Amino acid sequence: MSSEFGKALKIQIFGASHGRAIGVTADGLPAGERIDEEELYRFLSRRRPGVSPLSTARSEKDRPVFLSGLENGVTSGSPLCAVIENSDQHSADYKELEAKPRPSHADYTARLRYGDSVDMRGGGHFSGRLTAPICVIGGIAKQILERRGIFIGAHLKSVGSAEDASFPLYPDKALFDSIAAKPIPALSDEAASAMESEILAAKADLDSVGGIIECAAVGVPAGLGSPMFDGIENRLAAALFGVPAVKGVEFGAGFASARLRGSENNDPFIYDNGTVKTEKNDAGGILGGITSGMPIVFRAAIKPTPSIGRKQRTVDLSTFENTELTIKGRHDPCIALRAVPVIEAVTAAVILDIILEEKQDGAF
Amino acid sequence: MSSEFGKALKIQIFGASHGRAIGVTADGLPAGERIDEEELYRFLSRRRPGVSPLSTARSEKDRPVFLSGLENGVTSGSPLCAVIENSDQHSADYKELEAKPRPSHADYTARLRYGDSVDMRGGGHFSGRLTAPICVIGGIAKQILERRGIFIGAHLKSVGSAEDASFPLYPDKALFDSIAAKPIPALSDEAASAMESEILAAKADLDSVGGIIECAAVGVPAGLGSPMFDGIENRLAAALFGVPAVKGVEFGAGFASARLRGSENNDPFIYDNGTVKTEKNDAGGILGGITSGMPIVFRAAIKPTPSIGRKQRTVDLSTFENTELTIKGRHDPCIALRAVPVIEAVTAAVILDIILEEKQDGAF
Amino acid sequence: MSSEFGKALKIQIFGASHGRAIGVTADGLPAGERIDEEELYRFLSRRRPGVSPLSTARSEKDRPVFLSGLENGVTSGSPLCAVIENSDQHSADYKELEAKPRPSHADYTARLRYGDSVDMRGGGHFSGRLTAPICVIGGIAKQILERRGIFIGAHLKSVGSAEDASFPLYPDKALFDSIAAKPIPALSDEAASAMESEILAAKADLDSVGGIIECAAVGVPAGLGSPMFDGIENRLAAALFGVPAVKGVEFGAGFASARLRGSENNDPFIYDNGTVKTEKNDAGGILGGITSGMPIVFRAAIKPTPSIGRKQRTVDLSTFENTELTIKGRHDPCIALRAVPVIEAVTAAVILDIILEEKQDGAF
Amino acid sequence: MSSEFGKALKIQIFGASHGRAIGVTADGLPAGERIDEEELYRFLSRRRPGVSPLSTARSEKDRPVFLSGLENGVTSGSPLCAVIENSDQHSADYKELEAKPRPSHADYTARLRYGDSVDMRGGGHFSGRLTAPICVIGGIAKQILERRGIFIGAHLKSVGSAEDASFPLYPDKALFDSIAAKPIPALSDEAASAMESEILAAKADLDSVGGIIECAAVGVPAGLGSPMFDGIENRLAAALFGVPAVKGVEFGAGFASARLRGSENNDPFIYDNGTVKTEKNDAGGILGGITSGMPIVFRAAIKPTPSIGRKQRTVDLSTFENTELTIKGRHDPCIALRAVPVIEAVTAAVILDIILEEKQDGAF
Repeated sequence: MSSEFGKALKIQIFGASHGRAIGVTADGLPAGERIDEEELYRFLSRRRPGVSPLSTARSEKDRPVFLSGLENGVTSGSPLCAVIENSDQHSADYKELEAKPRPSHADYTARLRYGDSVDMRGGGHFSGRLTAPICVIGGIAKQILERRGIFIGAHLKSVGSAEDASFPLYPDKALFDSIAAKPIPALSDEAASAMESEILAAKADLDSVGGIIECAAVGVPAGLGSPMFDGIENRLAAALFGVPAVKGVEFGAGFASARLRGSENNDPFIYDNGTVKTEKNDAGGILGGITSGMPIVFRAAIKPTPSIGRKQRTVDLSTFENTELTIKGRHDPCIALRAVPVIEAVTAAVILDIILEEKQDGAF
Repeated sequence: MSSEFGKALKIQIFGASHGRAIGVTADGLPAGERIDEEELYRFLSRRRPGVSPLSTARSEKDRPVFLSGLENGVTSGSPLCAVIENSDQHSADYKELEAKPRPSHADYTARLRYGDSVDMRGGGHFSGRLTAPICVIGGIAKQILERRGIFIGAHLKSVGSAEDASFPLYPDKALFDSIAAKPIPALSDEAASAMESEILAAKADLDSVGGIIECAAVGVPAGLGSPMFDGIENRLAAALFGVPAVKGVEFGAGFASARLRGSENNDPFIYDNGTVKTEKNDAGGILGGITSGMPIVFRAAIKPTPSIGRKQRTVDLSTFENTELTIKGRHDPCIALRAVPVIEAVTAAVILDIILEEKQDGAF
Repeated sequence: MSSEFGKALKIQIFGASHGRAIGVTADGLPAGERIDEEELYRFLSRRRPGVSPLSTARSEKDRPVFLSGLENGVTSGSPLCAVIENSDQHSADYKELEAKPRPSHADYTARLRYGDSVDMRGGGHFSGRLTAPICVIGGIAKQILERRGIFIGAHLKSVGSAEDASFPLYPDKALFDSIAAKPIPALSDEAASAMESEILAAKADLDSVGGIIECAAVGVPAGLGSPMFDGIENRLAAALFGVPAVKGVEFGAGFASARLRGSENNDPFIYDNGTVKTEKNDAGGILGGITSGMPIVFRAAIKPTPSIGRKQRTVDLSTFENTELTIKGRHDPCIALRAVPVIEAVTAAVILDIILEEKQDGAF
Repeated sequence: MSSEFGKALKIQIFGASHGRAIGVTADGLPAGERIDEEELYRFLSRRRPGVSPLSTARSEKDRPVFLSGLENGVTSGSPLCAVIENSDQHSADYKELEAKPRPSHADYTARLRYGDSVDMRGGGHFSGRLTAPICVIGGIAKQILERRGIFIGAHLKSVGSAEDASFPLYPDKALFDSIAAKPIPALSDEAASAMESEILAAKADLDSVGGIIECAAVGVPAGLGSPMFDGIENRLAAALFGVPAVKGVEFGAGFASARLRGSENNDPFIYDNGTVKTEKNDAGGILGGITSGMPIVFRAAIKPTPSIGRKQRTVDLSTFENTELTIKGRHDPCIALRAVPVIEAVTAAVILDIILEEKQDGAF
């Protein structure tokens, strides 16, 4: 597999759903950064299952143990390794799946790619559980960035047909914090309520529902990113598509810009309060792959959880007969809900990586 | 800058709009591959400007000269270098722009990133003209892939509000060829006609219009791609966002899947004619980052050309005053039109790279 | 730091001498490979300190725990993580060193590079102890390679002025095994005895002594390696200089070839027993960066352990005064002795990486 | 092939000996750097053949043409492409070699690796001629570094049995310039004279002779390099082994340190004139993979030119019979002589790359 990203900050995700542990190593973190473990744990709690009827009943403690790289709460400059033990495993739930690949899951393609020996119990290394170590390193990156005035937040832009508002032109830390405190991370409480109905209805139907996450990063220095192929969009998209269930990424106006005229989509430059800004931000803070100083804004499409309780058609790979499958086990009716902090985590890790790589200003 | 992509096939794009030449090097092409230069040239012609009233009046010959890597029409195994000379340059058109950055163009951010010395005449290295060498290596990759039964084609899915149909479940080479032969590469002639109207109307208004390109790759072996961060989606997205004006990328149902239930979005597996297929292809041929054997299908959102003839607001960077700008010169009213072969080219290069990297033989 | 190597097999070394644990992650191991943990442990024992009066008295258990990637002794295809806990630490021994950098050690440069926050107790991430996780992944790579007829072995070519013979033209597994079983891994017992005298004499003098390690890899397929800059020599050298104390690497006749005529140094090709061979192997099995099918042979120069018990001159960095330093603690009088399996481990990891990367099958 | 090196400065070498042209692209050069083309051309002249009876009679003009990246003698920030046309080719000389691989040349292994289609006329991409574009980018890197007080020079340390002195503890630009001006770049004129005799004797015997090149870099900032595997030694060695005929690389005392005691090899720190230095420099300016501020010093072993005029034994690959071969054509009796500027060029490129990558101090 190839579960690594980053250039100046090389991040490797390891482990499998039903193995002994999962975790992350990170090579390239600056030394001397104080990490607040309680704040990190609060961040991790945002993706934890089992905290509400809206997510799966599995209980994951997900408290990471730092084997290296963090001494007395301060980064030591050595590569970091954080481990989360696996405990609550029901491998029996997955027996039937060995011969019958779940539709729209990686079961089938993982065996094509890696052979029969690959451990796919519980989704193996493809499991959504592997987003926990992503959040560990992303949560650390968030703290390092926040100390430098860079804040990252995300909300559910939609769940099924329930739509939230968009971020305002200049979102800020207070807004991000208020969203993070909500059980359903939406800007508007009406939207949150409609989303909850969508999720509960899907759950009642033994089904699932997709969603869109909108993420913003504010305070990112202008002038970051190396086009053509190492621009901010390239790097963020490459990492975001590593999050299970992400099927689309768009920056600024994104797909909507394809329906606009240039005179509508272009963002006029204005000089305001000593700074070059743009009057609106359909570019999502990125021009030519380089940050403009405006907030970075993008959206990620999260498909509905492929594991649903309804009977589905599949192929029995031992007999090559068309057959049916009913997936047991506990699954999230809307994985987008728990993916919100994961998207923030990936974004934080990528932005920290790019800043460490470019260090244009001695800030690091 | 960082104008390279690929791992087994390392591709570097060089040159600037108003320099002596632009070109591409490619290290890692297999030796002994016959390249039909006329076929390549026909492919390049599809992105050439000046061939219709729908595109800019600049005439670019864009006939590449092969300095290395191709001997008597056959790849030699040595790194390839192809060069396209620049000729038709009107640097004077760009004088005013040095102080006044064009809205939603890279002028401003490029200077932030690279300093005043960076050559931005005609957009410099950020110019859409740099997609010509991408098409050179992509056109070569296409020929190498086609010899192995892998075909790539794209069409305009939309221009402004004009919508084309989607690709059928199993597009094929004949369909790709028929689209490529049209002046406006759409599936339906009605859509093409509506798109033409959109483009001409934008042009008449001294404006521009965006579009969406849908691309498919058929015949790609199942089992390609290395999750979590080197899957097919990660690699394609990372490269596609290197094409100027791309602001969104989605695979399969993409953003639409976020509005669906799992029972709607999931693709049931079926065994048909000796092959495991899926009944529909909302996954876009990719599960868990790995090809399933179904056609790879994705869409890229192309923003409207930022250079428009209308007066726009900007900031004079020499005086830091808010001012206005009227861009002269010749610009495409709909850059999406000429981006169609560019998207195919990037796709071909990425897929060839991944195949060369993986060459799966079970030896291990 | 940048403690990663490998392309198809990405290996990260983490941890520090006096932290909680050290370890290794490896992303890209093939699935389904059975690993004999006892054989691995025997391999690790070869670098373990405290087993003879010739090495330091520190006792390291160095028994790795596999957190992921290995299930019931078989690689699972997921990234592997192996951890070795730190236990026997005498941090007090290192107090004085914070202000007084040890000559020819990384103390001084590590602080220049990473700042005062970097944890350098016991050498931190620069400690020779970090070669233990290198041996874990290298030992695993050795087993995977041996199953395919590829064997790697090394011996002490010299210690101080004590010289061993060179490998024969065709070394084999039996020879490698017999060397590995000796307390001093030399071909000739006379040489081993002379080396022992050199080491004990240095130890008695509170001093240390350097050595040269010769390593061979047999059974490596011909035709591996990607010149100009990804050839076998480039890749091996890049990784070998990551082993602490390595100050030189030479392939085949190496520096001696610089004193030869071409007619002496050239290896005539001969056809023998159905195979193209060379009559001798001054090229060390590598021509133009590519394996020829002859044994790969190289030597690495290992400097004397910089930590010695004798009084040395240094600078007090808190006062910037010239001063003296007497290093306490237990140190190897000849680190080359314990570096022999480390050199084998790096070689195995690099060769496995290159094979996984190239998997040549002629499909292209 | 894989003819690229560098991370922040990605350098690709392209072309083949008997193709249309050879050249180099470089992505990541800073914008606004003035390049003196005459000074560059003087540097290139140092590796040019045909200037003395000591080298091959082939005449190569090797004047590079800059297709991009350099505008009016100043780097533009866009990727640079420099091309050198091939002209003086005698392909007929190489006919016989297609079936009969030259001993200790890449002919045989290149075909194993790349198949029969690879163009090996004149050595193809493996030819020493490909060091010309390395010198182009290295010469540019030298000028950029010199402007910042970093100077790189090299001399022949030995040719056959003729030995030059070693660099003094602190070599400087004046010394480097004086060496570069000599027909045989040695410190001592007696050594140069003995080297000339060695070369002429080898030539008279239709033979060749090897040599050792010693290279130094002064003024390199302390604290550069990222251990364990991206240290200065790792990066330099990886690139140096890409220069044809290099078979060994050692830093500081190198292989000689293996014969020393720690008390002899260790470099005491001293505080002198406001700077932390070492009293001697057996570490070659590098501790733990990181620069100490002392001069970087290393040596590269260059094997004798494998193409010699004497009859040699080889295998006819069309009949698999043992046979003989007499190489025609013009070849350097001592390739080490012309490799001196090539080693400087690689060193300059690697050091500039590492500085651009680390930019610790805003100097860039």
